[in-house]
Amino acid sequence: MDFSLIFLPEVLGTAMLTLLGCGVVANAILPKTKGNGGGWLLINFGWGLAVFAGVYVAYSTGAHINPAVTVGLLAGDQPFFAGNEELGLAPIDNTLGNALVYFLAQMIGAILGAVIMYVAYKRHFDEEAPGATKLAVFATGPEIRSYGANFVTEVVGTFVLLFVIVAFGKTPSGLGPLAVALLVVGIGNSLGGPTGYAINPARDLGPRIAHALLPIRGKGSSDWGYSWVPILGPLVGGALGGFAAVQLL
Amino acid sequence: MDFSLIFLPEVLGTAMLTLLGCGVVANAILPKTKGNGGGWLLINFGWGLAVFAGVYVAYSTGAHINPAVTVGLLAGDQPFFAGNEELGLAPIDNTLGNALVYFLAQMIGAILGAVIMYVAYKRHFDEEAPGATKLAVFATGPEIRSYGANFVTEVVGTFVLLFVIVAFGKTPSGLGPLAVALLVVGIGNSLGGPTGYAINPARDLGPRIAHALLPIRGKGSSDWGYSWVPILGPLVGGALGGFAAVQLL
Amino acid sequence: MDFSLIFLPEVLGTAMLTLLGCGVVANAILPKTKGNGGGWLLINFGWGLAVFAGVYVAYSTGAHINPAVTVGLLAGDQPFFAGNEELGLAPIDNTLGNALVYFLAQMIGAILGAVIMYVAYKRHFDEEAPGATKLAVFATGPEIRSYGANFVTEVVGTFVLLFVIVAFGKTPSGLGPLAVALLVVGIGNSLGGPTGYAINPARDLGPRIAHALLPIRGKGSSDWGYSWVPILGPLVGGALGGFAAVQLL
Amino acid sequence: MDFSLIFLPEVLGTAMLTLLGCGVVANAILPKTKGNGGGWLLINFGWGLAVFAGVYVAYSTGAHINPAVTVGLLAGDQPFFAGNEELGLAPIDNTLGNALVYFLAQMIGAILGAVIMYVAYKRHFDEEAPGATKLAVFATGPEIRSYGANFVTEVVGTFVLLFVIVAFGKTPSGLGPLAVALLVVGIGNSLGGPTGYAINPARDLGPRIAHALLPIRGKGSSDWGYSWVPILGPLVGGALGGFAAVQLL
Repeated sequence: MDFSLIFLPEVLGTAMLTLLGCGVVANAILPKTKGNGGGWLLINFGWGLAVFAGVYVAYSTGAHINPAVTVGLLAGDQPFFAGNEELGLAPIDNTLGNALVYFLAQMIGAILGAVIMYVAYKRHFDEEAPGATKLAVFATGPEIRSYGANFVTEVVGTFVLLFVIVAFGKTPSGLGPLAVALLVVGIGNSLGGPTGYAINPARDLGPRIAHALLPIRGKGSSDWGYSWVPILGPLVGGALGGFAAVQLL
Repeated sequence: MDFSLIFLPEVLGTAMLTLLGCGVVANAILPKTKGNGGGWLLINFGWGLAVFAGVYVAYSTGAHINPAVTVGLLAGDQPFFAGNEELGLAPIDNTLGNALVYFLAQMIGAILGAVIMYVAYKRHFDEEAPGATKLAVFATGPEIRSYGANFVTEVVGTFVLLFVIVAFGKTPSGLGPLAVALLVVGIGNSLGGPTGYAINPARDLGPRIAHALLPIRGKGSSDWGYSWVPILGPLVGGALGGFAAVQLL
Repeated sequence: MDFSLIFLPEVLGTAMLTLLGCGVVANAILPKTKGNGGGWLLINFGWGLAVFAGVYVAYSTGAHINPAVTVGLLAGDQPFFAGNEELGLAPIDNTLGNALVYFLAQMIGAILGAVIMYVAYKRHFDEEAPGATKLAVFATGPEIRSYGANFVTEVVGTFVLLFVIVAFGKTPSGLGPLAVALLVVGIGNSLGGPTGYAINPARDLGPRIAHALLPIRGKGSSDWGYSWVPILGPLVGGALGGFAAVQLL
Repeated sequence: MDFSLIFLPEVLGTAMLTLLGCGVVANAILPKTKGNGGGWLLINFGWGLAVFAGVYVAYSTGAHINPAVTVGLLAGDQPFFAGNEELGLAPIDNTLGNALVYFLAQMIGAILGAVIMYVAYKRHFDEEAPGATKLAVFATGPEIRSYGANFVTEVVGTFVLLFVIVAFGKTPSGLGPLAVALLVVGIGNSLGGPTGYAINPARDLGPRIAHALLPIRGKGSSDWGYSWVPILGPLVGGALGGFAAVQLL
């Protein structure tokens, strides 16, 4: 188990992801912000650039910052990180033990990033707004609640994420983390309409836990009834996408 | 004929194209989506990033994912794929037999992607909306119906696509698939106003067939009367663009 | 004089520029288009990607596609094109004779692109709309008419264009034509507010001539009174920017 | 002290930054501009591309164009510029003397850029508009005034800026200045909601001084009461971010 290689970068990268990712939603929907009403394209560029920053931060672990990526690489029997001799970065094997370290770090990072986001937007959370709006800054929710359909949508979105990430690895690309960032913008644009594209269990569960714990003024339910969808959907979609890409590409 | 080299990647790449491309339209115009009313720039970035993902997936065939590209390369007598020795990818000749494999794969992929998009947005298709709106998620349609003028617009748009793609090949570029993605965003921004820029017969005909076959609630006509325009326009424009670029650049 | 090296690529590149550039304005402001009301960011991305495509097309001339660039390189005593041995492209000297070929080609190209744009949007030009709207598709115009102030704004915008283009040449950059495209988006975002940022005499004068000559339904004045501003402003700004960059960077 | 290496490029790069950065705000909020009402995403792309242009211009100093970057590199004990042998650019040490040259140049450049922006938008500043709107073109201000909370938000935003900039340096990246530009767009999208993300003391103080000095028609207060927040917040956040990144990454 490569705890010391994996833990800290994944915590930091996933914290960067939810800090900037939940941050753009706060900016777009909380009262009295500069970006209020900024719309879906703003939100998608925000999440894409959150991935961009997070991937640079967690570069030395392969920058999963998403349990669905970890599971997808396991399913496709790909190394968690190929390493980089020039930069003195060791490769990381796809063992179950290592996967658990990734998961743990991703969850801790996701909670941490959401808490810092809350601090940055504290005064705006203090304003009057529906509980559902305040929750939406932290966690995803469906526009039409239908657990089965919502689950399927998350499976499809995360399948695309893993399938194309594996495809990135099979082409000469000078884009680096920008490629994944643009892919996430694309998935949000195209498949985020029904459920808000968690496509990452840590991105949803971590901030949802933060929402449950933080003393947010006038907060409502953390909607635990829905919470399994953005966990299981991405894990299933990621596993299918990673496996399919390795078989088919 | 290089059936085994061409078929699967072109199916998968074109499916990725219509899944994400039709998906962004669904998000922008179907009822109760997160992206409802997101506007033309959202749609164009959505299609551009759909091309981005599809080109990575179909990299080993030269990533046509569009019969107009195949026809344009034929018209300019360019290889379908130059190959890549480092990655162990064989070149693909521009024979008529190979072209037919590309066409077949592109059509199957385009239908497949549209069906998966329908599954991901199922609950939103179940909502009340005009039949024309539901069709518009799948297939293009003109804002001012005038077959001759609409045909010309599609010719111009696809001419630009092929002309600039050939130009990409004559310059040192580190952008890879991002260049084509941005070109498609540009064509959509600039020439998509009258007809919604099919510029790809498979992108239009494939999802239109899916629309005709799928049990979409309250669907109206599949508008077969218009369907030849986004087939012939792109083929003519692509052939002219590919031929002209090779002669002039 | 390198007529044969310069003429055709500059015609084609500048035609691509005004076809896509004027096209995005048509899409954003003519009646019944898909992009109607798409806003300023759509227009700026449209012009940026028009530059992107045009620069690839005219790569073998250094892709000026703008008399202000030609004048700026003259003022800074920079070669018009450094050449590229690997691609077998000859360098082009900054002689006055060559400059005249660039200018001629840019004007012909700019008219040609605007005519093709008109053809692509013919039915939308046939709709009822104010003459000023139809002119705005072709040529720039100020929001607050004040020749002196408008001139200064064009000088500043084109100064930035040339200054940063020269800076691009002094850094290792893997972006190629994307860098100029993004710079144009940036200038449009930031300095396009008062006059619509011609920053290119051919981009304005060429389409204005096309507007004067074409049988556009219900067209009004071609506003020749303003036309000198987007010619002289960019030429002065380009010369200052090119000269200053070479002295200061 | 490397005065001659640092001074001019930092003046020019920071002037480019505030010219284009304040310019996009002018375009988005002053009366009768083309970009009026263009929204938050337009503003963020404008600032991001302002950074893009400014970083190219100041490439030979490491392109700080922001005292928080200078302070962050000091705090992390990183060289101010690693140099570039191929381009004949000397490295610059992180001495206090050099830092003072950076600061001085950044302030002069930031004022200069704001003055040129004012000239480019002169006629629009002459229009009727609230004093607070005219100030907002130059300097940042909070949506909910609360010095402590506003300070914290600026600390968080600048922490992210420095943390990720240091991370850029530890990965192979072909993006160059585009990476920092996208990072700034991301910070604006995600953390700019409460205070308008100064994240750069020179970007705020320089234009605020220009606002105080320029004879802007109907201008109101320069809001000096708030001015310490976008100075101290970014300096503290930058120092923490630079230090943390070097320790943790």
